Amino acid sequence: MAPLDLVRPRSLADPQPLSAWLDRIDAVDPVLHAFLPEPDRRARLSDAGVPLGVKDIFRVDGFPTRAGSALPPELFDGPEASLVTRLRAAGFVVAGKTVTAEFASAAPGPTRNPHDPTHTPGGSSSGSAAAVAAGMVPVALGSQTLGSVVRPAAFCGVVGFRPTHGRVPADGMVPHSPSLDTVGWFTADVASATRMAAFACPSWTPMVPDRAPVLGVPSPVYLARAGAAARAAFEERLTALREAGFVVRTTDFLSDVEDNAARCVALNRFELARTHAAWFPEYGDRYRPQTAAAVRQGLAVTLDDYAEATRWRREFVAAFDDADVDVWVTPAAPGTAPRGLDSTGHAAMSVPFSVLGAPALSVPAGHDAQGLPWGMQLVGARGADERLLAWGATIAPALD
Amino acid sequence: MAPLDLVRPRSLADPQPLSAWLDRIDAVDPVLHAFLPEPDRRARLSDAGVPLGVKDIFRVDGFPTRAGSALPPELFDGPEASLVTRLRAAGFVVAGKTVTAEFASAAPGPTRNPHDPTHTPGGSSSGSAAAVAAGMVPVALGSQTLGSVVRPAAFCGVVGFRPTHGRVPADGMVPHSPSLDTVGWFTADVASATRMAAFACPSWTPMVPDRAPVLGVPSPVYLARAGAAARAAFEERLTALREAGFVVRTTDFLSDVEDNAARCVALNRFELARTHAAWFPEYGDRYRPQTAAAVRQGLAVTLDDYAEATRWRREFVAAFDDADVDVWVTPAAPGTAPRGLDSTGHAAMSVPFSVLGAPALSVPAGHDAQGLPWGMQLVGARGADERLLAWGATIAPALD
Repeated sequence: MAPLDLVRPRSLADPQPLSAWLDRIDAVDPVLHAFLPEPDRRARLSDAGVPLGVKDIFRVDGFPTRAGSALPPELFDGPEASLVTRLRAAGFVVAGKTVTAEFASAAPGPTRNPHDPTHTPGGSSSGSAAAVAAGMVPVALGSQTLGSVVRPAAFCGVVGFRPTHGRVPADGMVPHSPSLDTVGWFTADVASATRMAAFACPSWTPMVPDRAPVLGVPSPVYLARAGAAARAAFEERLTALREAGFVVRTTDFLSDVEDNAARCVALNRFELARTHAAWFPEYGDRYRPQTAAAVRQGLAVTLDDYAEATRWRREFVAAFDDADVDVWVTPAAPGTAPRGLDSTGHAAMSVPFSVLGAPALSVPAGHDAQGLPWGMQLVGARGADERLLAWGATIAPALD
Repeated sequence: MAPLDLVRPRSLADPQPLSAWLDRIDAVDPVLHAFLPEPDRRARLSDAGVPLGVKDIFRVDGFPTRAGSALPPELFDGPEASLVTRLRAAGFVVAGKTVTAEFASAAPGPTRNPHDPTHTPGGSSSGSAAAVAAGMVPVALGSQTLGSVVRPAAFCGVVGFRPTHGRVPADGMVPHSPSLDTVGWFTADVASATRMAAFACPSWTPMVPDRAPVLGVPSPVYLARAGAAARAAFEERLTALREAGFVVRTTDFLSDVEDNAARCVALNRFELARTHAAWFPEYGDRYRPQTAAAVRQGLAVTLDDYAEATRWRREFVAAFDDADVDVWVTPAAPGTAPRGLDSTGHAAMSVPFSVLGAPALSVPAGHDAQGLPWGMQLVGARGADERLLAWGATIAPALD
């Protein structure tokens, strides 16, 4: 039997009948497990429309919300996410709920990487990244608290976009850490991500860049969070960008990243523990060990630690806003997708930018020796999502 | 000098030029202090549009967000509330930020009641209620955590609507207690509130009621939270409703309201303290005593208490959902607006329904011996906001 060609992302600019998307789901999802099982999808989707995958932390009318957890789904009941409502009104149909790591945190679901099903697709938006990479849908919604869009996009060789924190309302989703939680989406290319932004953001101003961006590279201390192969691939891409005519500036931004790691964890875990304060005391035995450990870690963060981390964060944001760089360029993850399904990989490269609330775009950047995709993270100024996507469309071709 | 006629609410169905609204603001706001001062409002508002008041806990591009507090406004920076963006796109213009009690909690701002400027307008959405009552704008946005829409609407003799929790995304606002915080609005009449709902809610299905509602009255234990005058006025209104042909059912719902009060406080204060964890340790000395006390109260609520209250809340919601009543009818507040500006009154009548997350409509219901307005609270099934407003329009005429 010939192996399935599992990798086939398809642009929003390259439409096909809904039935063709459903055929693709039927053909490859039994291998990839990007979607939660739904036996009567074809009967439900009798209308025309552009199919949309929705990470199962968002509430969608007509679907239970499980958030990758074993808790009673009624706990997460409520009005549909306004983002989903808005996209439905624009002509999208929900092809299904996609697999998420438990509570959009670290404990993985069953999804496999279309580039090699023995590898993780990354997480926590695992199913959404894999569904787009495999061409089951042209777009899928995810969310990012620390790295849950940027990393799976990189591991699956697709584009991931995480807007500025708060730019798209995050209502109707099971929260992780509210001051960090950000909606995002996966597409085949930057043009499709931009088209989605115009549907997803309450206000959106299309723009054409009037000049080339100044690219910035963070400090070697930050880059040392990536593995040797990722750093080598990254240096090759920087060379390609310079050869394509981009100005690439090296900086000492994030030279204090290790000092700040504890604060990032404090912010995240403190808020996570408060999110789960309503459920954990009663249902703690249904949590998977990674998530339970993270909640317990958060319960041990004192209010003073949280306040100190918040104060630091404000200074960190101010320093970022003052930097003389248009687009930060970094590895999207410390390496390509790790082998195995026990871990979704590490958010190390995304954490500082997530804490900043800045918009981040993950774009494909070639493959490693095993054929697994590399991804690069492009980060813009807070609130300047339009500009980041416009510049991203000019940067991406030099990387892949 | 003849006294100003301060009470003149004006329906959305009764339009007038923007300049006429601005004339009214200039004439009466120096007495009422519903809006935050803005010297160049008229220059800014050169465009046509329907003027909108926005409680100063929402972020609006071009305005600082102060939330009634003395904290640095930069702490509250971020993207504009999507509700405001949506209303602007529909043709509304922001006439100004309206006064809120500090952090949408209890410490009052300077706003006065148009029915008698020596009385409180209620709170925390004080400025929005007064601005609509005085006819400075046809609609103003507020928010309700425990009673901050229903009560000021009643005290100011206007209609207040608080949708089902989560029905309108609450992004872009300074939070109070996220599991309770709900956007709301004030208008002159139920028809205007309904028209606003179609603009404000991401999805809205206009409806005409196909039958009369069964009205329900909660237990005498709950009604005992209101003062004697309010209970007498309430009984008169029930008689009027029966005379108008409505079926009014007395029930024992909320007979355990006193037992549950501590849980409601635990839910609210625990979440409030977490909201302020980022600010209170650094800026505690800039908080007003009422708010500081509430935050400290929240810091003393244990996780176990919060979890217990959450568990109870789920049972409470299930019991509410099972009740054989279409619309609950209650006093909107324990009395008419108290004299003085030191307190915005008490949320006692709203708290249980706020904790339920059910939609609530406050409608004018006559006046007391001093000419201050009574209000009645109408509460519908969770998620059935359309039906509550449709029924509300049939109930309101029998009350006022």
